[in-house]
Amino acid sequence: MEVRVKILFTSICHTDLSSWKGENEAQRAYPRILGHEAAGIVESVGEGVEDMKIGDHVIPFFQGECGTCICCRSQKTNLCQKFGVNPLKSVMVNDGKTRFSTMDGNPIFHFLNTSTFSQYTVLDSACVVKIDTKAPLEKMSLLSCGVSTGVGAAWNVANLQPGSSVAIFGLGAVGLAVAEGARVRGASKIIGVDINPSKFFKGKAVGITEFINPKDLDVPVHEKIGAITVGGVDYSFECVGNLEVLREAFLSTHTGWGLTVLLGIHPSPMLLPLHPMELFNGRQIVGSIFGGFKGKTQLPKLAEQCMCGTLNLDEFITHELPFHNINEAFQLLIEGKSLRCLLHL
Amino acid sequence: MEVRVKILFTSICHTDLSSWKGENEAQRAYPRILGHEAAGIVESVGEGVEDMKIGDHVIPFFQGECGTCICCRSQKTNLCQKFGVNPLKSVMVNDGKTRFSTMDGNPIFHFLNTSTFSQYTVLDSACVVKIDTKAPLEKMSLLSCGVSTGVGAAWNVANLQPGSSVAIFGLGAVGLAVAEGARVRGASKIIGVDINPSKFFKGKAVGITEFINPKDLDVPVHEKIGAITVGGVDYSFECVGNLEVLREAFLSTHTGWGLTVLLGIHPSPMLLPLHPMELFNGRQIVGSIFGGFKGKTQLPKLAEQCMCGTLNLDEFITHELPFHNINEAFQLLIEGKSLRCLLHL
Repeated sequence: MEVRVKILFTSICHTDLSSWKGENEAQRAYPRILGHEAAGIVESVGEGVEDMKIGDHVIPFFQGECGTCICCRSQKTNLCQKFGVNPLKSVMVNDGKTRFSTMDGNPIFHFLNTSTFSQYTVLDSACVVKIDTKAPLEKMSLLSCGVSTGVGAAWNVANLQPGSSVAIFGLGAVGLAVAEGARVRGASKIIGVDINPSKFFKGKAVGITEFINPKDLDVPVHEKIGAITVGGVDYSFECVGNLEVLREAFLSTHTGWGLTVLLGIHPSPMLLPLHPMELFNGRQIVGSIFGGFKGKTQLPKLAEQCMCGTLNLDEFITHELPFHNINEAFQLLIEGKSLRCLLHL
Repeated sequence: MEVRVKILFTSICHTDLSSWKGENEAQRAYPRILGHEAAGIVESVGEGVEDMKIGDHVIPFFQGECGTCICCRSQKTNLCQKFGVNPLKSVMVNDGKTRFSTMDGNPIFHFLNTSTFSQYTVLDSACVVKIDTKAPLEKMSLLSCGVSTGVGAAWNVANLQPGSSVAIFGLGAVGLAVAEGARVRGASKIIGVDINPSKFFKGKAVGITEFINPKDLDVPVHEKIGAITVGGVDYSFECVGNLEVLREAFLSTHTGWGLTVLLGIHPSPMLLPLHPMELFNGRQIVGSIFGGFKGKTQLPKLAEQCMCGTLNLDEFITHELPFHNINEAFQLLIEGKSLRCLLHL
């Protein structure tokens, strides 16, 4: 039930960056092949794999879908119990071993079920899905993490309705993908919040209607949003991973029905910056992993929506480099200059 | 737009108790007429009131419904912007004055839009609703707060489906009303949690299928619940107002879709005892005021459901006393001996 994939394109997400830096002590397992956003072609399949064959175009995804556990059988969640993302996991499920090794036979660990910074990688079949051969593979890499995470947060988790108002905190690739998802769903107002004004130009292209730079304000962001929306937005999205931002995002929604979707990765063990009684104002908060998408079931359809232009991915790939320039690509991300730098293998 | 009501029956809820004790400094406004759970008969109506007339049987409710604000017009919330509950409010909306006064003309303050510990009270018409004259008024008092709060949390807020599993933390009147609501909706498993074993006898009568006394366990409650439900309940209800209990309630639900409904009144400004990353397990938490019921719109139907036996209120009135014995009724509540002591005026 494993698949070996020739990676053709891969890109970098902040989760790769924080793992590269070893920011979380418990998650350190080296040597390790990072990378989890990619697209490629099946090189070979192992025993039992029936939904893919050599030559298929595929997208790996870190939030697997076994299809048989109680969560996979539920319509309410994409948190597969067997292949759900686990930052501590560094080996394959089948035998607890790695499929990579050093020249002298020592293990090289896996990362987020995928390990795509490699010419070839081995994935559990639950973590890779076949897409239409006519889909442009270089763009499909975006569906592997960032764009799916943002678009799905708007579609699956918030289930945005036409006319809804939205505030997005943090305009990296994920935040802009939320905006693209909101635009497709017909949101009436899409407010982008970022302290980097260079994000605003890109934001306009994906449908953001208003920008707020907290540095330009003399009131808290939520007060500004409350003023321009008559009481707050219907949905807010936290794509930063900062507790103060999370609180602003929460307070920016309308009392009674406001929903805050949490996408950013937050340091533990900090507490949620909310008081129990604040929940009595009718605001809610919900976490979102991989945009609530079930990869096997839903990514092929998402790829089609990109092919037919429903979803527009043109703005997300800001740079392209050969794979051996990967450190340059990391630097672009660190400096906030790139959304996604596509690496060609 | 005000209504004067002759109160015939009133009962005591913990919110009356904490206000009587003056536990929250900001909410102290004395002299004050407490009480917010009652039933009575319209004595007179003010200018503009068209949906009630002298002699109508009515239920006052603290979470008003003006019918015209953006929240009242939304299907998603019962948090009326004009007459929503506000513990700090002690005067009428219309003129900022009181309708009660001492013999020498000084104001006596209002409480939770209702002030039912009185032979007569004056309510904004948004906070009182006419019910069927044939409904048993003494039981209808329960719909004024406790039973509606619990039943509505199961019906409106959690929107329980047949076959769901449920854990209820705290088996006072509100918690038992959650159980009754869950029973009516066809829950497959209703687990009651309380440190007072005398609550269990009552709990059986309203459909609780299993009891857990945390004092009898050598593991945390959520581990016990996880074991007997294969991963956790679909819904948990916190009816205590204790942060440790809240955390246990949260962890007692199934990952992926578990929903914790917060009913207990918690001290501020404590933070929610949850980590942001714990939301990525797919559990959610939501606050519930008055069970999500819109009083004007929904209480008459709820009264009918009690009359026809869909909802069974028999177990909730454990004591009855004349109104002048109110301090005795408070004592029964403090000692955990009563669910509701009905006071006859």
